[in-house]
Amino acid sequence: MASDTSGLIIDLNADLGEGFGIWRLGDDLALLDVVTSANVACGFHAGDPVTIRRTCAAAIDRGVTIGAQVSYRDLAHFGRREMEVEPEELCAEVLYQLAAVDGIARAMGGRVSYVKPHGALYNRIVRDPVQAAAVVDAVADYDPSLPVLTLPGSAVHAVAAAEGVPTVCEAFADRAYTPSGTLVPRREAGSVIHAVDEVAARAVRMAVARTVTSADGSDVPVAARSICVHGDTPDAVRLAKAVRDSLLDAGVVLQAFA
Amino acid sequence: MASDTSGLIIDLNADLGEGFGIWRLGDDLALLDVVTSANVACGFHAGDPVTIRRTCAAAIDRGVTIGAQVSYRDLAHFGRREMEVEPEELCAEVLYQLAAVDGIARAMGGRVSYVKPHGALYNRIVRDPVQAAAVVDAVADYDPSLPVLTLPGSAVHAVAAAEGVPTVCEAFADRAYTPSGTLVPRREAGSVIHAVDEVAARAVRMAVARTVTSADGSDVPVAARSICVHGDTPDAVRLAKAVRDSLLDAGVVLQAFA
Amino acid sequence: MASDTSGLIIDLNADLGEGFGIWRLGDDLALLDVVTSANVACGFHAGDPVTIRRTCAAAIDRGVTIGAQVSYRDLAHFGRREMEVEPEELCAEVLYQLAAVDGIARAMGGRVSYVKPHGALYNRIVRDPVQAAAVVDAVADYDPSLPVLTLPGSAVHAVAAAEGVPTVCEAFADRAYTPSGTLVPRREAGSVIHAVDEVAARAVRMAVARTVTSADGSDVPVAARSICVHGDTPDAVRLAKAVRDSLLDAGVVLQAFA
Amino acid sequence: MASDTSGLIIDLNADLGEGFGIWRLGDDLALLDVVTSANVACGFHAGDPVTIRRTCAAAIDRGVTIGAQVSYRDLAHFGRREMEVEPEELCAEVLYQLAAVDGIARAMGGRVSYVKPHGALYNRIVRDPVQAAAVVDAVADYDPSLPVLTLPGSAVHAVAAAEGVPTVCEAFADRAYTPSGTLVPRREAGSVIHAVDEVAARAVRMAVARTVTSADGSDVPVAARSICVHGDTPDAVRLAKAVRDSLLDAGVVLQAFA
Repeated sequence: MASDTSGLIIDLNADLGEGFGIWRLGDDLALLDVVTSANVACGFHAGDPVTIRRTCAAAIDRGVTIGAQVSYRDLAHFGRREMEVEPEELCAEVLYQLAAVDGIARAMGGRVSYVKPHGALYNRIVRDPVQAAAVVDAVADYDPSLPVLTLPGSAVHAVAAAEGVPTVCEAFADRAYTPSGTLVPRREAGSVIHAVDEVAARAVRMAVARTVTSADGSDVPVAARSICVHGDTPDAVRLAKAVRDSLLDAGVVLQAFA
Repeated sequence: MASDTSGLIIDLNADLGEGFGIWRLGDDLALLDVVTSANVACGFHAGDPVTIRRTCAAAIDRGVTIGAQVSYRDLAHFGRREMEVEPEELCAEVLYQLAAVDGIARAMGGRVSYVKPHGALYNRIVRDPVQAAAVVDAVADYDPSLPVLTLPGSAVHAVAAAEGVPTVCEAFADRAYTPSGTLVPRREAGSVIHAVDEVAARAVRMAVARTVTSADGSDVPVAARSICVHGDTPDAVRLAKAVRDSLLDAGVVLQAFA
Repeated sequence: MASDTSGLIIDLNADLGEGFGIWRLGDDLALLDVVTSANVACGFHAGDPVTIRRTCAAAIDRGVTIGAQVSYRDLAHFGRREMEVEPEELCAEVLYQLAAVDGIARAMGGRVSYVKPHGALYNRIVRDPVQAAAVVDAVADYDPSLPVLTLPGSAVHAVAAAEGVPTVCEAFADRAYTPSGTLVPRREAGSVIHAVDEVAARAVRMAVARTVTSADGSDVPVAARSICVHGDTPDAVRLAKAVRDSLLDAGVVLQAFA
Repeated sequence: MASDTSGLIIDLNADLGEGFGIWRLGDDLALLDVVTSANVACGFHAGDPVTIRRTCAAAIDRGVTIGAQVSYRDLAHFGRREMEVEPEELCAEVLYQLAAVDGIARAMGGRVSYVKPHGALYNRIVRDPVQAAAVVDAVADYDPSLPVLTLPGSAVHAVAAAEGVPTVCEAFADRAYTPSGTLVPRREAGSVIHAVDEVAARAVRMAVARTVTSADGSDVPVAARSICVHGDTPDAVRLAKAVRDSLLDAGVVLQAFA
């Protein structure tokens, strides 16, 4: 690769601790050996207290940075249903989740270092400044130095900037992008890329060339400090490892942003 | 009253924030003008995030000390069903609740200063050292300086002493006592005293003479730094005010223990 | 009143059984003496099994017709948050609730005779034919002879007609109407009418003249076989009684539609 | 095999539909090809409405008999925590679950034909006549012809007999038995038998010789019309198939009891 990759640093984040009670989702321990940041479910879309504690303890053991993966309150649909929630309620719900996971992480000798909204809430606050402000207010009330992980150009990015809360941009190596740089919606054909080699190559290009090939073949700039890998598919660990290995082979340094 | 009450200090605690969603329970604001310590529901038997935040904010406004009223996870039965829970799970559940409410209280400018287990959990750890240890472990993991409010002679008292976690003893002015100093179980006739004057007089005697008249008429010593008043009955606020006024009239100083 | 009211028949419906666990909402027994149809909460926005059973038993005792008040699954926000739910899931959720309450009613010697969607779901299927079809499919799968209570001109009305499921139209005596005959949204000033006399007079006019005065003073036709009275306000019972008494005074016959 | 197995009939039952929301448990479709009775989770320990409907539809497709697997309300701990519940509440909770699943099954063209309590409730009513009566009352209220699946000699067996509700006895091929014919508790070593051949051989002996070898080597009589196979272990389907094949090889007829 011709480009000079010295100094290139990227974070790999994945959703973890997304079981509930007897039910498990994904191979948390295997993923913790791959990623540099763990988005720990907080109990509202997934994650019970004992799972949160075990996940935090395992992340701390491996030196993986812990984030609070806050969500709408919706265990029955895994936080994937968009909801109308009053800002005061949403703010309090985010604050509750953030505090709960941070307190558990601290009791284990670590701490929450960032916030990543989950599922329908993540998507909603990309475009809705009202709910975005509710989330940012919760972070600002709890600890305004905690960055929020989001997409470039999102509503939450703008709101956070105005409130002095940092944001960090992420990219999705296994998701198709539109020519304008947004994600192709999941319901559209071809929105998710399954071929391991292709996903790994896209991750490298995102990290090194800061570019991704969009759905119409044109190149789109990607400004991401973190790349998200998914943890809940059968192939998740293999895919995540391929992304990690390809990034390391390309000379990228894997390091958490927080 | 002949006895010298100079220097007598007592705390008045009540359960607060025990609504959930649209449902309310008790007159929180009126009780906050009466008590010195507020046992704030943490979301497992009652209490949603926005209620927790409003209750904490109102307590802070009035200078009322905040405690975390941790419970079994049982919204459907208000934490009143005794449950078999593995110690690791119970410990994590208590830690989660404690951290969530403390984080919210801190975001409002206050903090959680003590822990009061709720309902069936409260009663269980009076006699079960295994579940008691799970609760104490959670407190010790989070902040070992936080006192646990309990009954004298309880299992949790012994376990906490061994772990170096402080406990504070409370008495119940509106509950009948057995000659051996334990509470008459709720299911027995006469277990709850409803006459306002009698409850207030018992509270004064508990604070000043450190004694209560038991169900058989004999006097029993009571060593309580706090007196619990109930918040969920129609007469709750009137009863609590009567206790407060009688204690003040008797020269007792009302002051939180934490 | 000049108009001949002989033969005028109207139903009065109210939401009932909307407690959960320890929490109560409204005075169910008092309302059951006023209404002719009881919309019994099914457990998804409110209503636990024992409350459902007691409410059904009390309705049967008084000869009040029972309806299943089906909702989004949202105890934390009382079914008041609009949600994106896949039609297959929504259909199954409605079917589950309908079957549960009908089974309890039958065990008590009665049965569910109609379906009334609750809160955000009610409003959503007034305008969304996809979610409306999911609800209608559930009713058709369970018992296609059960009418669905809705607003005139709603999406659910059209969908139900196409599937052969009956609908019954209701009006709201305490809600302001737009000149085009829809309800003034709750967030707008003046959307709810609180004056008891005015509400009662509007109910009579709805029943007798099939007309309501809209927000701009113009008369709007109202074709309602049922009038909804609310049960969760402090004044609910007094208001409902006033509506009932005024209707009876005007010669209207109060009778359930199902 | 010397014994004449002509006319020997046994049922194979397994727990099914025990996912919740995004989470799955076991391979339901594979198990439905093995068993003759499906204990369908009702939503209180597992099982959401869409899972219940799919499971019922798949059971009906295969001619597998449907039972309602009623439970304590305890999603967070999969119904495995023993709970104190007032009989009136427990009865209403069982009735709610039974009605919900029966209604869904009927909408799919089938019906619930028996009741199998789950987990901690199953074990509790083996020995507690009060909770046993609450469960039996619910069945009697709903449909007194529905049999309850339980262990021989259980409290629920006695209570049901007194109320005229039928019971059916089951045995567990993969569980160790005490010399007195009860199950060795799960917490004891050797309580669960994992060797496929041994489990299959025990099932055959239970069906043909109506006997099982207990933990001390002595033979114990087993009077079971049904044998339970577990569905939530990695090996579950293979084990269940081995039991089924061995029973068929031994000339046993596999047929539901209801």
